[in-house]
Amino acid sequence: MTVTIGVIGTGMIGRDHTRRIQQVLAGAKVVALSDYNPDSARAVQVDLAPEAKLYEKGEDLIAAEDVDAVLVCSTGSTHEAYVLAAIAAGKPCFCEKPLATTAEGALRIVDAEVAHGKRLVQVGFMRRYDAGYRLLKQAVDHEIGTPLMVHAAHRNPTVPEQYVTPMAIHDTLIHEIDVFRWLLDDDYVSAQVVFPRKSSHAHDRVADPQIVLLETAKGIRIDVEIFVNCRYGYDIQCQVVGEEGLVNLPDPMAVTLRKAARLQREILTDWKDRFIDSYDVELQDFVTAAAKGTAAGPTSWDGYVAAISSDACVEAQEKSGQIIPISLPDRPALYDKG
Amino acid sequence: MTVTIGVIGTGMIGRDHTRRIQQVLAGAKVVALSDYNPDSARAVQVDLAPEAKLYEKGEDLIAAEDVDAVLVCSTGSTHEAYVLAAIAAGKPCFCEKPLATTAEGALRIVDAEVAHGKRLVQVGFMRRYDAGYRLLKQAVDHEIGTPLMVHAAHRNPTVPEQYVTPMAIHDTLIHEIDVFRWLLDDDYVSAQVVFPRKSSHAHDRVADPQIVLLETAKGIRIDVEIFVNCRYGYDIQCQVVGEEGLVNLPDPMAVTLRKAARLQREILTDWKDRFIDSYDVELQDFVTAAAKGTAAGPTSWDGYVAAISSDACVEAQEKSGQIIPISLPDRPALYDKG
Amino acid sequence: MTVTIGVIGTGMIGRDHTRRIQQVLAGAKVVALSDYNPDSARAVQVDLAPEAKLYEKGEDLIAAEDVDAVLVCSTGSTHEAYVLAAIAAGKPCFCEKPLATTAEGALRIVDAEVAHGKRLVQVGFMRRYDAGYRLLKQAVDHEIGTPLMVHAAHRNPTVPEQYVTPMAIHDTLIHEIDVFRWLLDDDYVSAQVVFPRKSSHAHDRVADPQIVLLETAKGIRIDVEIFVNCRYGYDIQCQVVGEEGLVNLPDPMAVTLRKAARLQREILTDWKDRFIDSYDVELQDFVTAAAKGTAAGPTSWDGYVAAISSDACVEAQEKSGQIIPISLPDRPALYDKG
Amino acid sequence: MTVTIGVIGTGMIGRDHTRRIQQVLAGAKVVALSDYNPDSARAVQVDLAPEAKLYEKGEDLIAAEDVDAVLVCSTGSTHEAYVLAAIAAGKPCFCEKPLATTAEGALRIVDAEVAHGKRLVQVGFMRRYDAGYRLLKQAVDHEIGTPLMVHAAHRNPTVPEQYVTPMAIHDTLIHEIDVFRWLLDDDYVSAQVVFPRKSSHAHDRVADPQIVLLETAKGIRIDVEIFVNCRYGYDIQCQVVGEEGLVNLPDPMAVTLRKAARLQREILTDWKDRFIDSYDVELQDFVTAAAKGTAAGPTSWDGYVAAISSDACVEAQEKSGQIIPISLPDRPALYDKG
Repeated sequence: MTVTIGVIGTGMIGRDHTRRIQQVLAGAKVVALSDYNPDSARAVQVDLAPEAKLYEKGEDLIAAEDVDAVLVCSTGSTHEAYVLAAIAAGKPCFCEKPLATTAEGALRIVDAEVAHGKRLVQVGFMRRYDAGYRLLKQAVDHEIGTPLMVHAAHRNPTVPEQYVTPMAIHDTLIHEIDVFRWLLDDDYVSAQVVFPRKSSHAHDRVADPQIVLLETAKGIRIDVEIFVNCRYGYDIQCQVVGEEGLVNLPDPMAVTLRKAARLQREILTDWKDRFIDSYDVELQDFVTAAAKGTAAGPTSWDGYVAAISSDACVEAQEKSGQIIPISLPDRPALYDKG
Repeated sequence: MTVTIGVIGTGMIGRDHTRRIQQVLAGAKVVALSDYNPDSARAVQVDLAPEAKLYEKGEDLIAAEDVDAVLVCSTGSTHEAYVLAAIAAGKPCFCEKPLATTAEGALRIVDAEVAHGKRLVQVGFMRRYDAGYRLLKQAVDHEIGTPLMVHAAHRNPTVPEQYVTPMAIHDTLIHEIDVFRWLLDDDYVSAQVVFPRKSSHAHDRVADPQIVLLETAKGIRIDVEIFVNCRYGYDIQCQVVGEEGLVNLPDPMAVTLRKAARLQREILTDWKDRFIDSYDVELQDFVTAAAKGTAAGPTSWDGYVAAISSDACVEAQEKSGQIIPISLPDRPALYDKG
Repeated sequence: MTVTIGVIGTGMIGRDHTRRIQQVLAGAKVVALSDYNPDSARAVQVDLAPEAKLYEKGEDLIAAEDVDAVLVCSTGSTHEAYVLAAIAAGKPCFCEKPLATTAEGALRIVDAEVAHGKRLVQVGFMRRYDAGYRLLKQAVDHEIGTPLMVHAAHRNPTVPEQYVTPMAIHDTLIHEIDVFRWLLDDDYVSAQVVFPRKSSHAHDRVADPQIVLLETAKGIRIDVEIFVNCRYGYDIQCQVVGEEGLVNLPDPMAVTLRKAARLQREILTDWKDRFIDSYDVELQDFVTAAAKGTAAGPTSWDGYVAAISSDACVEAQEKSGQIIPISLPDRPALYDKG
Repeated sequence: MTVTIGVIGTGMIGRDHTRRIQQVLAGAKVVALSDYNPDSARAVQVDLAPEAKLYEKGEDLIAAEDVDAVLVCSTGSTHEAYVLAAIAAGKPCFCEKPLATTAEGALRIVDAEVAHGKRLVQVGFMRRYDAGYRLLKQAVDHEIGTPLMVHAAHRNPTVPEQYVTPMAIHDTLIHEIDVFRWLLDDDYVSAQVVFPRKSSHAHDRVADPQIVLLETAKGIRIDVEIFVNCRYGYDIQCQVVGEEGLVNLPDPMAVTLRKAARLQREILTDWKDRFIDSYDVELQDFVTAAAKGTAAGPTSWDGYVAAISSDACVEAQEKSGQIIPISLPDRPALYDKG
């Protein structure tokens, strides 16, 4: 069976997912495209999916009879409405992050999905599909004993002028917020942010670096350095310390050179290269579940918790040094693990 | 366009390639299956390709109108005949190694393909598709200056009783023989084999370890340790030394643990895990070229040269210490690089 | 010229320093020994310094005409009095940590030395003499740009029953407290301590692990994990992140093995092995300066600041989560850097 | 007891050993200096050993009553005579390599020492005292099972115009020749040399790189790459493969940097830095043994075997590709291991 896919939003990521479905993955094809800019949708049609139908409105694409499942890749503020429409239509829906621009919006999606009674939504937290994080999780689960601490870093070589302090949470830390919950099978209970000496390479509107300190329900302490003008590379580090030992996230594969008086390995500088392979695995997971009329991977609930947690981190930025509590409603049974 | 594939030989590798085409790769489907044991073909049909037709004879599968391209995964002694039949039918053909059981047989395939005038055959040397070797080649081409030496090792934890000394060449070194030619864009001119002190873990019928010394037309010197009872793991090492520096093949990705008084990383022990990802890339390359009616990747000529070179290495085993010359006919223009 | 040394306290460290002077270092000899237990001093005399004279009282050893310089290796509570006596006698004095058991005591030593007008005291912070830390400092000074953050860990495999929570500061963190000041040429302005989930391997009277968060006058943020029941080894980690890059303290030299399906390096488990070589360098520095009638290396002021800073960290343990300010008087000119 | 030392030859290495004895090591002092250039000896006296007496002739220094032991650091052609004189005088004698300029000369020293009946000579093979090689030997003896193969490399960034092909053996490989015998407790039975493609950075009079293949009495196969224009650094590599696993010589300690899109560690470029610490250990070993009137460490026999083995390697260079046998007389009982 081939799953027929409609793609809403044909910008960089929507185009790339279309290419993925058409040229890389098994079991699906793109049959419908929509973008607020019709030229963008048409260009993707021409380049990658000549048999796909174009829709002016995302809602019509969702409603189309020959569309089995939907990818929401449009601008963030439109996500909530499209995802709710997909749930209403009973169609599996992959939604790029954020699930909604507010925690309340994310909760409306959770409520709708719970009312529907079956999982239909996968949120685009791709790190859970990264080969390195999967090896890390295996070691956390089987090698190091009970986890007690996480030391992590999220470093970008540089950020554009429009990147301001809260984006360090909403656009950068958001990935750690989700992936640590998955890695540790745990939730946050508090957040604190401290600001080290500012890098002279950071522009005026961003405090950089920052250190976020998180505490989980099980008492695990997490420190994450966010440093978006680190100059040297795009570098994601994660060390989990357990009762019996510790484990590090592997660096991306690279050759080791001996050259020019240096033993050296390349460090990536473009974030797009870092998790490139995980998008394939992520979307294949969506296609496989959609073929059965449901969804797998990161849930609406995960999207909602990420929203709640990142709101607390932004408050912790504003009240630097203070410990901000994080509390969650009970998790609906729909999101219990098998 | 979807390429329709017929698979001849449905043992371990034929079954796995069928799964790959049906469940992992884009752009192809298996429509025909054949095995000298009909039950094997039927089982693969049931499990992976319910719409595929079964053929008693590989020749009939090759001739079938709805088969665009052929995978030859049957036992080695049957390869030559099937590949020649595919060429005769003008169909792209992926052939697992060896291309033929003798250099003469491989040359007959080369001649047939040259007579046909267009590439149709891809030989299953998957290492060229391995992410690590691709990074290595990039460094060899751009980072280390003119290559002068290669130091390599091919180690297995253990081998079964039926593994005898010449298999260290035909089954083990054969991968290095091909991949170094590709890595260095060069051919061999001589081979020498020396036998170190034998491991007490090696059984009677195999000399183990062995060291193979190869010289190339450009004067590059290669030493390869073959050690098939090394106990500790399945480990492929390759270091290329150039005029400006040197580079090592990366080890497979693994987490680093600190545990039990050891900084430690897992080493694979099963060869099947080592190049697992490269099979996907290899076969996608075949599908993409087959969609255009041709073949890419390792050629019949590469298969022929591998046969000639490994025959010389076996002679070098038999005359240990002696330097055995290797000579090749001129390469047909069909196999010139773009 | 040979510097004549008197050693007060002939327990484990006093005996070892005697051996060092007699058998390893150039330019000094032990001529006097004293211990509250005369049998201990006599045993060291017999084993290592047969020509040394025994003194019942440390004060008499200090006053002895043929003693050029003094090592204070006795129990901590006696340090202050012996060091003050050495200053009064105008003799160079090496004092194992702590310089005094209270910050006030340490300040009395500072005042006495300032009144004397010349440096006479070296405190036994040996990490500054460790080859790894010296390489680290070189990189901090020349390679990574302005330092912004330090991520560190001090891990012991296990601790005895008598090790209680504040000892994590006074006996464990004390080394980091000193070495970071030296590494960064900076002082602390605040401390915070948080307690992760407790390891099940920690006994009742010690909270373990702990995370200490320090802020410096220049705004550098430091996080130190203290984990004294980490099981896997004695492991000292330190990463300094600067504006242009980051650098890690090297692990102690070890061979890399490939064995038993693991790439592996030994991690030390006994703290005594970790900085063993640095004691030689430290004491040679003392001997060299003593030959000129003065002292080098870590100063009384460093000992005093370590006392003030660790007192604040203990308060931060008691008020977990709170940020405790640290303030220092002005540094006397005697302790300015050349 | 203080061992009184006379130093013959006060060039770079003689001056450095004098400094070592005077300023670094315990238990010895330089009381006599001699050089064919009296100004050189006087300068060392002034700078490092004001109480030492100057001798015009090395023979007189050896004969001097107040000289307990002798360091021979003069030019190679004079070594044999001085060492024979020291043996005749019954004085412990440390001789820089080569022990003699011919195998016959070295054998004369062996014979004289055997006739004397007690060890008096230590040859300056300092690698046996290197911390890295000692860790390697420990692993070879206890971790990897019976050794079967050694893969090694000796690389210099560049060599001066006067460095010609045979010097790759006598000046470069000589260290490997000695240290592998010690590492493996074995002797060589044959040598072969092959010449890879020549580096364009090598001048006319040196074939570079070279690969030396050695076989030992126990059947161990050793390959050593000698590459003295490798450009990137001074780099000594050694991997020993045993029946149970393999082990690598550690690289010198260095910090790991993340900087400029590279994970990087410095590689030394000056050979003088590589084994600098091992000279201290080597000479302390000499002093300790000399205090007992004898010698330790590398023996005259080791110096003789190194001469025989390197002569065979030079012959193997001249007859490239040919396997040259190496044979030794029986080892005198004086050189048996305890």
